Amino acid sequence: MFAVLRWAVLFLPLCLGVRLFHNLYCETGEVEIRRNPEPSKYGSLWPLPQKVQLSAGLFQMSSASFAIVDAKQSSAGSDCNILQDAYRRYYEYVFGRGVQRDTRRGGPPVLTQLQVWISSPDPQCDSYPTISSDESYELFVSLPNVVLKAPQIWGALRGLETFSQLVHEDEYGVKCVNETIVTDFPRFAYRGLLLDTSRHFLPVNDILHTLETMAMNKFNVFHWHIVDDPSFPYMSKTFPELSRKGAFHPYTHVYTYDEVKMVIEFARRRGIRVLPEFDTPGHTMSWGKGQPDLLTPCYSGAEPSGTFGPVNPILNSTYDFMAKLFTEISTVFPDAYIHLGGDEVDFTCWKSNPDIQKFMEKQGFGDDYSKLESYYIQRLLDIVSSLKKGYLIWQEVFDNGVKMKQDTIVHVWKGNPEKYKNELENVTAASYKVILSSPWYLNRISTGQDWLAHYKADPLDFHGTEQQKKLVIGGEACMWGEYVDNTNLTPRLWPRASAVAERLWSAQNVTDLDDAFNRLSAHRCRMVGRGIAAQPLFTSYCPKEYWGA
Amino acid sequence: MFAVLRWAVLFLPLCLGVRLFHNLYCETGEVEIRRNPEPSKYGSLWPLPQKVQLSAGLFQMSSASFAIVDAKQSSAGSDCNILQDAYRRYYEYVFGRGVQRDTRRGGPPVLTQLQVWISSPDPQCDSYPTISSDESYELFVSLPNVVLKAPQIWGALRGLETFSQLVHEDEYGVKCVNETIVTDFPRFAYRGLLLDTSRHFLPVNDILHTLETMAMNKFNVFHWHIVDDPSFPYMSKTFPELSRKGAFHPYTHVYTYDEVKMVIEFARRRGIRVLPEFDTPGHTMSWGKGQPDLLTPCYSGAEPSGTFGPVNPILNSTYDFMAKLFTEISTVFPDAYIHLGGDEVDFTCWKSNPDIQKFMEKQGFGDDYSKLESYYIQRLLDIVSSLKKGYLIWQEVFDNGVKMKQDTIVHVWKGNPEKYKNELENVTAASYKVILSSPWYLNRISTGQDWLAHYKADPLDFHGTEQQKKLVIGGEACMWGEYVDNTNLTPRLWPRASAVAERLWSAQNVTDLDDAFNRLSAHRCRMVGRGIAAQPLFTSYCPKEYWGA
Repeated sequence: MFAVLRWAVLFLPLCLGVRLFHNLYCETGEVEIRRNPEPSKYGSLWPLPQKVQLSAGLFQMSSASFAIVDAKQSSAGSDCNILQDAYRRYYEYVFGRGVQRDTRRGGPPVLTQLQVWISSPDPQCDSYPTISSDESYELFVSLPNVVLKAPQIWGALRGLETFSQLVHEDEYGVKCVNETIVTDFPRFAYRGLLLDTSRHFLPVNDILHTLETMAMNKFNVFHWHIVDDPSFPYMSKTFPELSRKGAFHPYTHVYTYDEVKMVIEFARRRGIRVLPEFDTPGHTMSWGKGQPDLLTPCYSGAEPSGTFGPVNPILNSTYDFMAKLFTEISTVFPDAYIHLGGDEVDFTCWKSNPDIQKFMEKQGFGDDYSKLESYYIQRLLDIVSSLKKGYLIWQEVFDNGVKMKQDTIVHVWKGNPEKYKNELENVTAASYKVILSSPWYLNRISTGQDWLAHYKADPLDFHGTEQQKKLVIGGEACMWGEYVDNTNLTPRLWPRASAVAERLWSAQNVTDLDDAFNRLSAHRCRMVGRGIAAQPLFTSYCPKEYWGA
Repeated sequence: MFAVLRWAVLFLPLCLGVRLFHNLYCETGEVEIRRNPEPSKYGSLWPLPQKVQLSAGLFQMSSASFAIVDAKQSSAGSDCNILQDAYRRYYEYVFGRGVQRDTRRGGPPVLTQLQVWISSPDPQCDSYPTISSDESYELFVSLPNVVLKAPQIWGALRGLETFSQLVHEDEYGVKCVNETIVTDFPRFAYRGLLLDTSRHFLPVNDILHTLETMAMNKFNVFHWHIVDDPSFPYMSKTFPELSRKGAFHPYTHVYTYDEVKMVIEFARRRGIRVLPEFDTPGHTMSWGKGQPDLLTPCYSGAEPSGTFGPVNPILNSTYDFMAKLFTEISTVFPDAYIHLGGDEVDFTCWKSNPDIQKFMEKQGFGDDYSKLESYYIQRLLDIVSSLKKGYLIWQEVFDNGVKMKQDTIVHVWKGNPEKYKNELENVTAASYKVILSSPWYLNRISTGQDWLAHYKADPLDFHGTEQQKKLVIGGEACMWGEYVDNTNLTPRLWPRASAVAERLWSAQNVTDLDDAFNRLSAHRCRMVGRGIAAQPLFTSYCPKEYWGA
């Protein structure tokens, strides 16, 4: 029934019908450059599904007659809001907004339905996605109807995106799609993106816009690095002074409770978890403004200098505060995990403080301030554990030998490939789960096609047993905010983050750089067509250029 | 009457009334970083005027009563459309769109008029700006009225921008301005920005948006690198096939005659010249699609390979074509100069072609293909000279020893500081005028504050006599298009190009990096407030963040 893949090679270029590449002659030469003008046999699919059988058979669709509906056998029906919402969204992605094009008489057979079949007894319509959500799906594009089968709604969301990526336009502008079978599931369960809303404030709209684009790339974790040294935009009900004094502005540069809830719900509808990070004991300068005595007073000789260091780990009031704050956080954010940070603690201030020195002596820590850090983190982890939350921590916490629950996830972010591969080896040897970010600091930019390096990095490319490799649950692209706000966030993220998305979703052997370039170029133009200011990979044009969101 | 500058230091921080910097604690360290939290004594002025006398005296203004009017003595009146248009524009920049705020009772004295006084007999209302336009102005902010005096409208346009930069808000949101005298003129007459509309098409809207922002930075030349290898978006009346076949798309990716005229008029109203570049004989792949026999057929052994090289310099038809095309160009573009390119000619194809070989022999060029290039350029220069146009050429044309008119401007773009300083020395020693771009290729990006390097480069920093230095008429920031289209153009340009703008406008001794950082941060926030997606310099916030143009 389905022709082998080589047939698809012959067909797709004809149906795409546009010159996507026009970039053979150019003068740059800074870095490795891809400029392959061949459309991929996989069209614009991104990330590439685990298994795709494309056929030469072609169908057409009309916005007037096409419908996305629940399959009769589906365990989810019209009361499954999350699916109904997705149907509307993907209908619009496929047919555009307000654009009605008829099918072509004498053209290929007309498809009129996409039937979505949720096959498990609990479709999870009202649940939040978790680390163990089933995102697998099967997609059958064929007569009489397209069928999308998934155990849970999470897979259906992914499959709808894939279906929308299979649709293209013929030369008359009619929507068409090839006969296709897709069997798909993610390689890694954790596929994250970090945004930093402390170094620059990002209006909620921009966060929602990013979540929308994450779904187009099958990301499933939004790591919200919500507070840090420069500002504290999270409006706490328990401690309103934190944002009142610690935000850049107490009204214009904060996230209200309702806004946070909106972000979480918007993400849920796209199968995306919201993982909040409240990083301590370092990275907390902004916390100190609204919470007196929280930070360590630094000393200059025998006198306080007037400046402050990390969270003060020797006061009981610190732990009372943390217990109350994290109690609030654990109810506001439904995810089973909280990111507790723990990175880059500067010991200078602690060392200067005579009270800290006495405490060190009393505890028998000697001169080893990492023991003091561990003491703090240990107590914090106990607090968060008591709230029935799991936690992620940056790799320093592991490096310092802090005792952690066995389900702790270690977030590796430091160093060059040699170093981070070592770290992956060590963390997994200690039987901890791990996610990788080191090769994916997207805030680092350079001229040229740096997505190639992001694409080539692989989280399992380290020395370790099969058991160890299984502990690598995924990775995360990070966009730190020193040089990024909503003026440049979107083009800097996309399609660079898309490279990470495919690495974390697709099969390990999906490594053909030319094919990736071809698909990513088309995927980028699709994002642009959907109103996302995704920047170009190289000299080229899109059939529909960016005209504003 | 005016206090010395140190008074301003005391005053401005109070009246600005916002915390612009919140960035003392951060984790990056890739490159040199400025993070000075002090507001500049010069507020947000950018580029810094030649002479500013700020006083502590403060005035307030109300949108209801304030007016920008022609001074009685002015040689320009209500029929000077370009000024009336600018009055409306700057009123809106000062007071915002549709926002009406009253003055404050018991507040400082109220200013009600800005009087614009054009002092030369010919105000130039209907002229195009030229290399010798007078952009000087004097600005007196004082009771009873603000007076802006300028010999020509070009200086008035610059002075209006400066006035708008002096206005700030007090803590009640009332517009206020300090007693000030500004005496100002540009250090260099040529302050350019190159956009490349061939590697990616830029919709006209984005070009206008860029021109608007150029005016905010006192740039005065838009170098329109309109065609190149990848595409030919210029719709020629004489040779319509050039864009019909050479553009990315013949309708959606072209500039019509009316659009080109609109760009030129929009630029004129902002005192900006439009300098078109039609680069030959290299960089012409897209030309060949609509003009058979224009490009040199490359050979593989004794047979044509089917590919093409640079413009074919041995055919009379080539020069007939160029004469007709440049005749059209010289009428469409009113500027006295055309950029003729001449860079990066690859000789491989010429060498392969037996007809070219014969011609070389006949001309006695031996194996020196740069002589053939010179032969072509020479004939082209003669054509353009006969059209009464001056020309700019990239430095290779000078390097190859082509005979050029003495008023030719050489465009230096190659190399590291050592090399480009040598080139500046050589070009000026040969008595040619020169503009510099080498340190200002803004398409080259890196993590961190690369504006610092752009800012430090100085076009006169080379060995040469005073006479030679006078031949340096300015410089140009270049944004080549391999990795840039309208999704990322604006944040990548601004405020990075602003650094170049100040270097080219302000006095040579304006080199204080901390003060520049402070002013540029505020200037960037002003651009954001005006709807320009200028990216941040570092961890910070703007009182009014970007909410879309």
